Amino acid sequence: MEKVKVGIVGLGRLGSCHAKNIAFKIANATLVAACSVRSEEREFAKRELDVSECYDDFKEMVTKADIDAVVIVSSSNFHNEHIRIAMEAGKHVFTDKPLGLNMEECLDSQELINKHNDQIFMIGYMRRYDPTYMYVKKKIQEGAIGKPFAVRCTSIDPEDTIDGAIAYAETSGGLFRDMTVHDIDLARWFLEDEPETVYTVGGAYVHKEFEKMNDADNACAIMKFKNGGFASFYSGRDALHGYHIETEIIGPKGMFRIGAVPQKNLSMIFNENGAVQECVSYFPERFAEAYLNEMQEFIDCVQNGRTPGVGAVDGVEGMRVAYAMTKAFKTGHVEKIDV
Amino acid sequence: MEKVKVGIVGLGRLGSCHAKNIAFKIANATLVAACSVRSEEREFAKRELDVSECYDDFKEMVTKADIDAVVIVSSSNFHNEHIRIAMEAGKHVFTDKPLGLNMEECLDSQELINKHNDQIFMIGYMRRYDPTYMYVKKKIQEGAIGKPFAVRCTSIDPEDTIDGAIAYAETSGGLFRDMTVHDIDLARWFLEDEPETVYTVGGAYVHKEFEKMNDADNACAIMKFKNGGFASFYSGRDALHGYHIETEIIGPKGMFRIGAVPQKNLSMIFNENGAVQECVSYFPERFAEAYLNEMQEFIDCVQNGRTPGVGAVDGVEGMRVAYAMTKAFKTGHVEKIDV
Amino acid sequence: MEKVKVGIVGLGRLGSCHAKNIAFKIANATLVAACSVRSEEREFAKRELDVSECYDDFKEMVTKADIDAVVIVSSSNFHNEHIRIAMEAGKHVFTDKPLGLNMEECLDSQELINKHNDQIFMIGYMRRYDPTYMYVKKKIQEGAIGKPFAVRCTSIDPEDTIDGAIAYAETSGGLFRDMTVHDIDLARWFLEDEPETVYTVGGAYVHKEFEKMNDADNACAIMKFKNGGFASFYSGRDALHGYHIETEIIGPKGMFRIGAVPQKNLSMIFNENGAVQECVSYFPERFAEAYLNEMQEFIDCVQNGRTPGVGAVDGVEGMRVAYAMTKAFKTGHVEKIDV
Amino acid sequence: MEKVKVGIVGLGRLGSCHAKNIAFKIANATLVAACSVRSEEREFAKRELDVSECYDDFKEMVTKADIDAVVIVSSSNFHNEHIRIAMEAGKHVFTDKPLGLNMEECLDSQELINKHNDQIFMIGYMRRYDPTYMYVKKKIQEGAIGKPFAVRCTSIDPEDTIDGAIAYAETSGGLFRDMTVHDIDLARWFLEDEPETVYTVGGAYVHKEFEKMNDADNACAIMKFKNGGFASFYSGRDALHGYHIETEIIGPKGMFRIGAVPQKNLSMIFNENGAVQECVSYFPERFAEAYLNEMQEFIDCVQNGRTPGVGAVDGVEGMRVAYAMTKAFKTGHVEKIDV
Repeated sequence: MEKVKVGIVGLGRLGSCHAKNIAFKIANATLVAACSVRSEEREFAKRELDVSECYDDFKEMVTKADIDAVVIVSSSNFHNEHIRIAMEAGKHVFTDKPLGLNMEECLDSQELINKHNDQIFMIGYMRRYDPTYMYVKKKIQEGAIGKPFAVRCTSIDPEDTIDGAIAYAETSGGLFRDMTVHDIDLARWFLEDEPETVYTVGGAYVHKEFEKMNDADNACAIMKFKNGGFASFYSGRDALHGYHIETEIIGPKGMFRIGAVPQKNLSMIFNENGAVQECVSYFPERFAEAYLNEMQEFIDCVQNGRTPGVGAVDGVEGMRVAYAMTKAFKTGHVEKIDV
Repeated sequence: MEKVKVGIVGLGRLGSCHAKNIAFKIANATLVAACSVRSEEREFAKRELDVSECYDDFKEMVTKADIDAVVIVSSSNFHNEHIRIAMEAGKHVFTDKPLGLNMEECLDSQELINKHNDQIFMIGYMRRYDPTYMYVKKKIQEGAIGKPFAVRCTSIDPEDTIDGAIAYAETSGGLFRDMTVHDIDLARWFLEDEPETVYTVGGAYVHKEFEKMNDADNACAIMKFKNGGFASFYSGRDALHGYHIETEIIGPKGMFRIGAVPQKNLSMIFNENGAVQECVSYFPERFAEAYLNEMQEFIDCVQNGRTPGVGAVDGVEGMRVAYAMTKAFKTGHVEKIDV
Repeated sequence: MEKVKVGIVGLGRLGSCHAKNIAFKIANATLVAACSVRSEEREFAKRELDVSECYDDFKEMVTKADIDAVVIVSSSNFHNEHIRIAMEAGKHVFTDKPLGLNMEECLDSQELINKHNDQIFMIGYMRRYDPTYMYVKKKIQEGAIGKPFAVRCTSIDPEDTIDGAIAYAETSGGLFRDMTVHDIDLARWFLEDEPETVYTVGGAYVHKEFEKMNDADNACAIMKFKNGGFASFYSGRDALHGYHIETEIIGPKGMFRIGAVPQKNLSMIFNENGAVQECVSYFPERFAEAYLNEMQEFIDCVQNGRTPGVGAVDGVEGMRVAYAMTKAFKTGHVEKIDV
Repeated sequence: MEKVKVGIVGLGRLGSCHAKNIAFKIANATLVAACSVRSEEREFAKRELDVSECYDDFKEMVTKADIDAVVIVSSSNFHNEHIRIAMEAGKHVFTDKPLGLNMEECLDSQELINKHNDQIFMIGYMRRYDPTYMYVKKKIQEGAIGKPFAVRCTSIDPEDTIDGAIAYAETSGGLFRDMTVHDIDLARWFLEDEPETVYTVGGAYVHKEFEKMNDADNACAIMKFKNGGFASFYSGRDALHGYHIETEIIGPKGMFRIGAVPQKNLSMIFNENGAVQECVSYFPERFAEAYLNEMQEFIDCVQNGRTPGVGAVDGVEGMRVAYAMTKAFKTGHVEKIDV
């Protein structure tokens, strides 16, 4: 079978991770083209990844390069446009979340994607492809805890990334759209249901800069789902110990807890501080395997004409909830998720 | 210094635990009298605890017995009455929570207690006297994590106590007043603030009997505090692994987690199930030391004329929140805590 | 039933712990007399423990005081003499380990004890009365892991007690007789068998002072048992994280591990060091309940004429092994345990 | 830079893992040729790995195929011969342990390798390339615990592989040469020293079949190192919970523990068994990354003419110790490691 020919746009932290995976670790893909407005990123693609065709214009890459699929890791404000161009050019598309900068763009992307439903589309909710999350999902499907009725999510970014979080707080859409959206996706995935209402509390307790932007550095939300289940969320920006992603799924026959200690690896040191487990630094470390697995899944779907388990609807619904959660934070009321 | 002479009312599971502690493990107290409507409980007091004066009428005990202090572990519906009788007889009073069956009774108890503020009064929020909780509180006061702004509480009763939970669901006041009230106290204690609003979601997912009583077997609530902090609560009735009491306190310089694995003891078994930690069965096992410590504190306060750290106000405010939490569960709205 | 009347000798760190337990926490015992050569210790007994009869001469206490039982917590070099005096005066005896300063004294104590086998005798291997060790022993007796064939023991004293360890290294008998002897007892107890040969390696890696005394600060030994099982031991003097007592018991159907993390309590702190569990400081903290439980057991045995589960033979055999272990460390050969 | 052209021999469980890594996950290598006496393995190489040149004769592959390097994953009894053929043909060589079936073969391999010291040679002690072990080694080199003086190793194979262990016990060389040899390598690596003497105890406690072969199913050994440090080893064949590889490294400023719970992934399930961590099944799961990392290192060394950190001397010295450990098990004496 032929290898899937891929063009990528965006070679920043996450983009270069995807690019290296496609170039070196995915047997049935080949990285043919790369696009970036930054010359050093194009240089990197040529030199390190052996990509022959490098572009500074996305449309040009899509038009000229001999590619089957496009991987979009550009800035969020370009996602909708890049999805449109790629879809209309008949390419299969993988895009990092979100589908667009706002609800309108997300819905527009969804419409585009649906119109081209013979092309493969996948959105980068990578946690679903993390080995532990995959394992737990499988065990739950096999009945390990019965049908789940509650999910509890904790996401705390490391304090040492706080400058970027502050700088990008407004363009990122704030705590809930930028960060909690991954947890929202997990809750929808594990409960296999859509949320109905949400309520949020929180504030800027550590970094007052967020207050000016009407954003929070620590917040908590709870959501009711249509079939009666619920989910709770804790999101924060300032973990001193590292990158803390923890999830619980509760059913009538037991509960799973994932990542209670966000351990760096299998070592513990006993020293003057006590019994210490060092923690993972950030998402590239925690989700390295998840990023590889999701891309492998995308490529396999393209090659076999199979529909990925995570698509436009997940991008749209996750964003819809994140908007309602943000609204609830600002109004102090329980908000319906029906925008 | 003279030993404090104590009379106890109620010798059920918790009552007999308190009685044994007073009789045998608290050096500066002596258990002089015991009251129970059940003859076998009075027999137990005589035979096992060497209590000479046994009564079936509380007023009689308070009037006749040579006691300085009364320990009330009777049914909740008698708490208000017993507090009144004991207070008016000039006795120091320790009572298990709640202060009364409903808000009116709680407020009435508080008024009584305040009127007799030369007598020692203490309410049994024993978790504050658990060695781990005490340790964490002390570390926080010393600045270990900065000033806390968020508390997260999980309380899940063991599934094998479900029959009692169902049978007493109506008299106990339901999940929030019976159970979450301990977590509410912890949140108030750690945040050193009073809550303002609360929102609750949940349902009867495992035991449909609770639905008929408009009660939940699993629920989640979040509360905003007056100074801006917040707390979240997960309460359940059906842990298969044991009795799960877990608390997190989050501050700008770190976070404490207490009881993440409700381990039975310091052993782990590696067998065909994996690496297994057995869990504590229920509150008498988990909080054995806390029950002893709180009673020691009460006796010391009586002996030294010192005011205990937990009093009528904690009983009243905890109950006020539990009522609002219950109301929010029923209305589906954010409720103010100002009843 | 009458309370057991107790006289204690030695009110140092461990002695005062025992004394307080007898005075306040053991319902069926009363602390009648105390003996110490130090006036401040006698003062403490009078003032804090309400002991009326205080002596500076052990023989005088045994002769004059109205006591049923003697608790010996004097210096090791007095144990043999104190056992003799108490036994010959017809008292029941609890003694802290060892039975004597050397093998001859231990055997002499054993002979004395055997001669008076109508009096209760118990030696203070308190670990057998620690709740976790008791639980594991019971589970093993119930068949949880099948018949154990191997035991692995780790004991590391906290570095901050090193000065005392160095100062007393010669009188204490060195690492193996002072410290490993508790692990040897556990291995004998869990395997229900006697060891046959032992081999030891180790050295003075951190504190060179031990080298001059032909002693080790870190060492490892393995022992073959008569019925074919084996045990290994790691003993150290310089844990920076606290007091580390860990034991594994291995059988054909699984293995138990006790104290893998010598956690101070049920809290974990997440901070700039990672996910941290603080550890217990030393034996009074780790084994507080064990000291109480063993004394309760002694008193109950006295009251009911029951033989304790741990007696002279355990004191003698444990010491025999510790001597062979020490010899093996010095000779570098496998040594028989048949002195 | 040119990709390194590789030929592999042996495509069993470990061989096919290496082959897939070379074919798909190592950017600077290409799998050109494969050799196996089994036709279905050659078919697999053609079909799944797209290997054009498949051979049933090793010498033929080495002679005819256009390869720079050979990866030897054949049966142990062929290692020496395959090393010879490859080395003499001027190929770079990676071989799975051991260097030969017995000490003579190992020494012969070493001589061959040393004679061709312009060719890269590496032996598959993959644990050194496991992310956790690499991390701990690096931290120790940076001074995290001072200079280590003791190492403790535990290796227990899963019970469900026992049939193979019994079947191959004699050809594999028994517990110590087959299994403990990996721990011996870790001890040498962390202590940066060579062992001098060893003593072993153990037996066939669970599977009597091993007794007939003078082998053990559970055993324990301790070793003295030339510069005074020591190491202890526990090796077993029958873990019901999975594959248990645990290592401790102890220094004057702290101790590292690796793999205390051999967790399958980051999830914990709370159910009727308690708080349960499932464990890894066996080495392909536990050391998947290590196998990839070591092969990447080999290829990088070939490409850059760099000497790998683990070579013939490690293969020879590890085997020498394993032999002495086996001898000590049989004689019951402390054995010198100087064969």
